[in-house]
Amino acid sequence: MVYAVGLMSGTSLDGIDAALVDISGKDEETMVKLLAFSTLPFERTTLKRIREALSLESSDVEKICSLNVELGERFAQATLLVCEKAGISSEELEFIGSHGQTLFHIPFERDDFVASTLQIGDPAVICERTKTTVISNFRERDMAVGGQGAPIVPYSEYVLYQKRGTTRLLQNIGGIGNVTVLPESGKLTDMIAFDTGPGNVIMNELCVHFFGQEYDNDGFYAKQGTVNQALLDELMTHPYIQKAYPKTTGREDFGKQFTMALIEKWPLDPVDLIATATMFTAKSITEAVRPFIKGKTELIIGGGGSYNPTLVTMIKEELPEASVLIQEEIGFSSEAKEAVAMAILANQTLQHRSGNVPNATGAKRAVPLGSITYY
Amino acid sequence: MVYAVGLMSGTSLDGIDAALVDISGKDEETMVKLLAFSTLPFERTTLKRIREALSLESSDVEKICSLNVELGERFAQATLLVCEKAGISSEELEFIGSHGQTLFHIPFERDDFVASTLQIGDPAVICERTKTTVISNFRERDMAVGGQGAPIVPYSEYVLYQKRGTTRLLQNIGGIGNVTVLPESGKLTDMIAFDTGPGNVIMNELCVHFFGQEYDNDGFYAKQGTVNQALLDELMTHPYIQKAYPKTTGREDFGKQFTMALIEKWPLDPVDLIATATMFTAKSITEAVRPFIKGKTELIIGGGGSYNPTLVTMIKEELPEASVLIQEEIGFSSEAKEAVAMAILANQTLQHRSGNVPNATGAKRAVPLGSITYY
Repeated sequence: MVYAVGLMSGTSLDGIDAALVDISGKDEETMVKLLAFSTLPFERTTLKRIREALSLESSDVEKICSLNVELGERFAQATLLVCEKAGISSEELEFIGSHGQTLFHIPFERDDFVASTLQIGDPAVICERTKTTVISNFRERDMAVGGQGAPIVPYSEYVLYQKRGTTRLLQNIGGIGNVTVLPESGKLTDMIAFDTGPGNVIMNELCVHFFGQEYDNDGFYAKQGTVNQALLDELMTHPYIQKAYPKTTGREDFGKQFTMALIEKWPLDPVDLIATATMFTAKSITEAVRPFIKGKTELIIGGGGSYNPTLVTMIKEELPEASVLIQEEIGFSSEAKEAVAMAILANQTLQHRSGNVPNATGAKRAVPLGSITYY
Repeated sequence: MVYAVGLMSGTSLDGIDAALVDISGKDEETMVKLLAFSTLPFERTTLKRIREALSLESSDVEKICSLNVELGERFAQATLLVCEKAGISSEELEFIGSHGQTLFHIPFERDDFVASTLQIGDPAVICERTKTTVISNFRERDMAVGGQGAPIVPYSEYVLYQKRGTTRLLQNIGGIGNVTVLPESGKLTDMIAFDTGPGNVIMNELCVHFFGQEYDNDGFYAKQGTVNQALLDELMTHPYIQKAYPKTTGREDFGKQFTMALIEKWPLDPVDLIATATMFTAKSITEAVRPFIKGKTELIIGGGGSYNPTLVTMIKEELPEASVLIQEEIGFSSEAKEAVAMAILANQTLQHRSGNVPNATGAKRAVPLGSITYY
């Protein structure tokens, strides 16, 4: 047994996912088994501070400096929690792979800004509290070789999901939606991956604004509303949706500012707005993946969005030519997927092996990702 | 020959210091020889962006995200520059130790903020551009074990300067002033180090404000002015000056805001203000080090301030009981000192050896510092 923990805290701000795995081998010979999973929700004060740090208006250098360490403590807690759940001590871990909390992502140079990405959650704090070596900051190195730093999970998807003879479309729906195309050939170099557009971000912002809810639990509000076709048509003309891959997006494009502008321009019944935002997410996904359907094809949905039945039903209706499944239906934990990916990337880095997929990120070459903080 | 580069970019914002060294061994057996040194000044636009990122008012998450990578590129350039100067290729380097640019430092928990520190300058970018392994973010780990993350150079000072039978007071005058006391005993555990208070920061802010000069070159303005005793007395009552060690400070305490308030309250002739600020720096140093003078004692001044003869003369006059020397007078390069320290810390970390001095930072124990980004 080689115990390791993968930590993920996505743009949805649902909390910190921790996956305890047994992992061995490397590259396509990696063997990984999920032993335990838990999510540590953010306390209200921490959540407020993350939201402030994400915003151009309220962020500043002092808040970011402090939050980096505060989140390090939370990531350590999340690690201790999943270890406790499995009845082991964190000292038995070989390593921890920590994604960090993304505060900002600039995929391309523009104006005064260079292409860059910012994840925080101090690895030194995680390392000390858990007495374990930590691998962190996976995205920066991909960007240093010309990649967009996203998507970051394709390598782990290749290790875990590839199935020769079947095209598998792995659609993650977190704050942002992203897809990985695992081709029939089963070859890493034939893989494609990109962000499809918004995941839950617009729906969530609407739920916060209108109902004081963090997200549309079970697709409750969307189910009560009616899709407004004119608004949907307008949304589908968004430049990001029209763009060809490789492409990557973030809260910068579809977050609070975007949603507030939408509410102002379209003063509809809140449930109709949420229904339309849900259909926009569904359709941005189905339109994006359609060109890659080839032979027997499975669209496998993971992430928080896979627990929204209204959204999943819309995707099924829009994409009759593929089998639409959620992760659990093929025996994988949807909620643990990205956290497990972090353990796989960390395992690669510790062995000086690469973890990015150049076809997915646009990087010039495959490189080991992240920095190592040895205990 | 084991080539390594140490990179330092201090709070003075003078540019990026790069020291190329030949280094071997570890702990007190470390052997280090300076082979070449160069400083890459910041371009005007980069300097402007750093100043914006340092300020509570003008900083935001987007600027910090981008500047992290922009400075990574500059640190890489600084490395290539010093290698070129020495006629070697950066690929011949074994490793680079990079301090990064400090954007903020919160030594103690207060209000909504936890103790934390923020250095930027993406190690992944430095690593890719130089094709060399990078060790970075030295301060975070010391803070994770309860230290103040500063001062960070005492370990290297112990390696380089300790001389049994002589008390050596190593006074660095960068933006902030800090001293390391190397006791007669020559023991690491008897070392003490702390920030004495302002270094050049107030003088520099005054020169920028009144004369559009980044600093008081050769102490030119201070020499023309007269020290205002009433102002000096008031400055010496500053809570930081009154406090006992261990203590650490930064631009937050003595930077632009402090200087602007001072100018408003004391509408003196600019040269008198600069002379008084210079004397304040001198006296905050001499008062702080006086209790540690024991037997044969040398005060060895390094950092940008050592090139300000007005300041050095003031220190000599205020401290007749010790020999006051500048680094060069004992055969060390003052300008290279902190950059060399980063190579020494990196060398320790790569060998899983500690690099902090608990007596200096207040840390609970000695730990390896920083994260490793392997090429």
